[in-house]
Amino acid sequence: MDLNSDLGEGFGQWTLGDDDALLGVVTSANVACGFHAGDPVILRRVCDRAAAAGVAVGAQVGYRDLAGFGRRFVDVEPDALTQDVLYQVGALEAFARVAGTRVRYVKPHGALYNAIVAHEEQAAAVVRAVVEYDRTLPVLGLPGSAWLRLAGEAGLTTVAEAFADRAYTPEGTLVSRRLPGAVLHDAGEIAARCVAMATGEPVTDVEGGSLSLAPASICVHGDTPGAVDIARRVRAALTGAGVDLAPFAP
Amino acid sequence: MDLNSDLGEGFGQWTLGDDDALLGVVTSANVACGFHAGDPVILRRVCDRAAAAGVAVGAQVGYRDLAGFGRRFVDVEPDALTQDVLYQVGALEAFARVAGTRVRYVKPHGALYNAIVAHEEQAAAVVRAVVEYDRTLPVLGLPGSAWLRLAGEAGLTTVAEAFADRAYTPEGTLVSRRLPGAVLHDAGEIAARCVAMATGEPVTDVEGGSLSLAPASICVHGDTPGAVDIARRVRAALTGAGVDLAPFAP
Amino acid sequence: MDLNSDLGEGFGQWTLGDDDALLGVVTSANVACGFHAGDPVILRRVCDRAAAAGVAVGAQVGYRDLAGFGRRFVDVEPDALTQDVLYQVGALEAFARVAGTRVRYVKPHGALYNAIVAHEEQAAAVVRAVVEYDRTLPVLGLPGSAWLRLAGEAGLTTVAEAFADRAYTPEGTLVSRRLPGAVLHDAGEIAARCVAMATGEPVTDVEGGSLSLAPASICVHGDTPGAVDIARRVRAALTGAGVDLAPFAP
Amino acid sequence: MDLNSDLGEGFGQWTLGDDDALLGVVTSANVACGFHAGDPVILRRVCDRAAAAGVAVGAQVGYRDLAGFGRRFVDVEPDALTQDVLYQVGALEAFARVAGTRVRYVKPHGALYNAIVAHEEQAAAVVRAVVEYDRTLPVLGLPGSAWLRLAGEAGLTTVAEAFADRAYTPEGTLVSRRLPGAVLHDAGEIAARCVAMATGEPVTDVEGGSLSLAPASICVHGDTPGAVDIARRVRAALTGAGVDLAPFAP
Repeated sequence: MDLNSDLGEGFGQWTLGDDDALLGVVTSANVACGFHAGDPVILRRVCDRAAAAGVAVGAQVGYRDLAGFGRRFVDVEPDALTQDVLYQVGALEAFARVAGTRVRYVKPHGALYNAIVAHEEQAAAVVRAVVEYDRTLPVLGLPGSAWLRLAGEAGLTTVAEAFADRAYTPEGTLVSRRLPGAVLHDAGEIAARCVAMATGEPVTDVEGGSLSLAPASICVHGDTPGAVDIARRVRAALTGAGVDLAPFAP
Repeated sequence: MDLNSDLGEGFGQWTLGDDDALLGVVTSANVACGFHAGDPVILRRVCDRAAAAGVAVGAQVGYRDLAGFGRRFVDVEPDALTQDVLYQVGALEAFARVAGTRVRYVKPHGALYNAIVAHEEQAAAVVRAVVEYDRTLPVLGLPGSAWLRLAGEAGLTTVAEAFADRAYTPEGTLVSRRLPGAVLHDAGEIAARCVAMATGEPVTDVEGGSLSLAPASICVHGDTPGAVDIARRVRAALTGAGVDLAPFAP
Repeated sequence: MDLNSDLGEGFGQWTLGDDDALLGVVTSANVACGFHAGDPVILRRVCDRAAAAGVAVGAQVGYRDLAGFGRRFVDVEPDALTQDVLYQVGALEAFARVAGTRVRYVKPHGALYNAIVAHEEQAAAVVRAVVEYDRTLPVLGLPGSAWLRLAGEAGLTTVAEAFADRAYTPEGTLVSRRLPGAVLHDAGEIAARCVAMATGEPVTDVEGGSLSLAPASICVHGDTPGAVDIARRVRAALTGAGVDLAPFAP
Repeated sequence: MDLNSDLGEGFGQWTLGDDDALLGVVTSANVACGFHAGDPVILRRVCDRAAAAGVAVGAQVGYRDLAGFGRRFVDVEPDALTQDVLYQVGALEAFARVAGTRVRYVKPHGALYNAIVAHEEQAAAVVRAVVEYDRTLPVLGLPGSAWLRLAGEAGLTTVAEAFADRAYTPEGTLVSRRLPGAVLHDAGEIAARCVAMATGEPVTDVEGGSLSLAPASICVHGDTPGAVDIARRVRAALTGAGVDLAPFAP
């Protein structure tokens, strides 16, 4: 089982999250590439430390929108989006190589992640960037998304993730953040759910039913002190349950 | 002999120079990498066309200053400058690879180019970026600059350039643009000087003396229609004089 | 009758359109405010020259998207959009005041202009900015848009514009640019249509029918040499027909 | 006596300092204007709250350098710098007006603050912006700086500030941050020095001598929890000593 989280999301003088703490928890680091967050100094440091810690470096590509932190849909033309993704992956690759590793997967960020669940043209544009850049790069995302479906059709390795702290509908989709109960806060419950996901057991959906999720990676957050604690609890519970933690990417 | 010029210096809706025309003239393209100019769509197009035309792609790295077009000195900390250069080279590399080629050299742009003639710390920072990225990458710059000196000391291949349309002092340095006669405008004179430079003959310095320049590359401009015409004249004169034109980078 | 056009749309080293030529044609200048185009040096120059020429300065507010020139929809939260508009209007106001005038109206740009034809929340957000800033400022836009409707409901003065070079449907809406015939190119035809619009005569819609447009302002373009020529023809035809040209804004 | 501090220095998702806490301490808020920090949502909130708290809003203008937080010298042409300052002051003014107040003074930020201690051209450029915008606006800065001298010569009201937590040389200049002892950390000592400054008593310089500073405003910091505590101590000590605290700006 793989644990992934967003890292490198500061910019210049501004910090966000505790990258160092998370590098002691996760096996895959989704590193911001400078369009929604992340500057070259930060990319360098995160890549160096991830490489030293044996954490896989992934490109967390986003919309070009620092002011909105990539959380606002931008109606980018598909061709331009392909080039935006290539630019970001290449920039991160420089730091990965200097750190003695490589960009080992691609995971879109924020509004782009959400958009390409259903936006076929933008999903295809991101897929095209990965295909053109390196067909051996796995892509990480939401099961059932256009993103993973089109990536699979294009011959890419797709990796489905689940969210440690999110409630699921009986159909296996995320409960909207606008609804009560969408985000779980109890560290024990979250950790237990992650163990279930990792060992093939069902979890409880938002309506109390039984839902089988079989993710290849679990996404944890680290942008608050509480979130880091939860992430640590998840890791401890998984290793305590005998789950091997390792990057999904070769 | 190599002919180099700055390309890819538009941004978004804005264009600058005639990239397509220049790709028919030069053998090495200094491609803007997005910090002073150049967006991902432009980088893609220039790399694709340069690769198709057999023109070597070089990284034209600059200060992060779109509003100033990289023409204003920025007192960046050396470590941050190293990472800024790595970011830019990596971003361009993605497009070079997709186009079937590689970034084949590095040439700083504008105020950074000027600063590292004498600014030892910034020069060393740019050298460090190239050393860390790929020790086999040649660097292009001004003879006598800290940039080329430190690059040479670090074991990089250094390539000295001369400017087709600039007047030189008897000491072989450029006449300041603030002085009369600093920039040459007569296409015939410019072309003749380039032939002299390429064939080992001296040129006339600003005081009328004889000056031997032995550049490995000649820099031509293309940001005005007149400039493209001059660049074409230079190329025609060189080939007419039997000078072989080819990229300096392997 | 008022003639308006977009000005100040360069950025840094990059130019776009011929501001000086347009200032000899239009009576109202929609000046870019720095978010999609326009830097402080450009804002200063355009305001100074507009004031000297008696051309009204309007704030052409847009999405914060230099790379996309404000032509891509951005799903900005309404509250943030209100503040983005205030920021832009205030910035332009500084230059207008220094030039001895004021920002005299607001006209959204590009994708924002298009979005608030129907996007009620964003339209309301832009209206709120104008209401908060100065209730006496007129707003310029498309007849039938949510933007003008909500502005009117909020007590703002609304000014409807027509496009000199666009075909209209029988319902009085613009023919999509994706359809043939959407953009008119014949200068004589365009000028004649503008005279009709200005004198209360109907124009021919895209299906050959008769359509009555009664704009208070006509929008002309100036981003190509041909466009400037057409704009001049429009002005000459209007004055030749005895139409008084003057800014709509007091 | 006036207490000033930098506020509004977050950007988008990123926060910096505790604006709300500082608004309970200072009498003048140097509000970032978007070039080195501060986005429109932040400017709005800070202006609204400052106005409600009776804190004077000042324009903290800086270099256009988000990545460097305005802490890197940028060799901007003086004319461009004038327009950059006007743009920032105007943008902030929109929010000040909406909040029912006005921009009441100008204080440069970071590297610009430091540069115009001695850089005559840039100092004159900032002065020119204030003169053109509103000759009644006071300017805040370092005693002995070119900035205050040129502002005074131009007829502007100049306000000299001292730093609560910085050591001074016998000549009354700041001890370089690179030297030991440059920054004071003891809250009691800092507060006592501020009381001395405010009551016309001398303080101890870095060499143990007696130094008379007579600032019209004292600058406190608030970018760390400890800094806010010190700022509160300074305020309490001043009011405890019977010093009236009020904005210097009318």
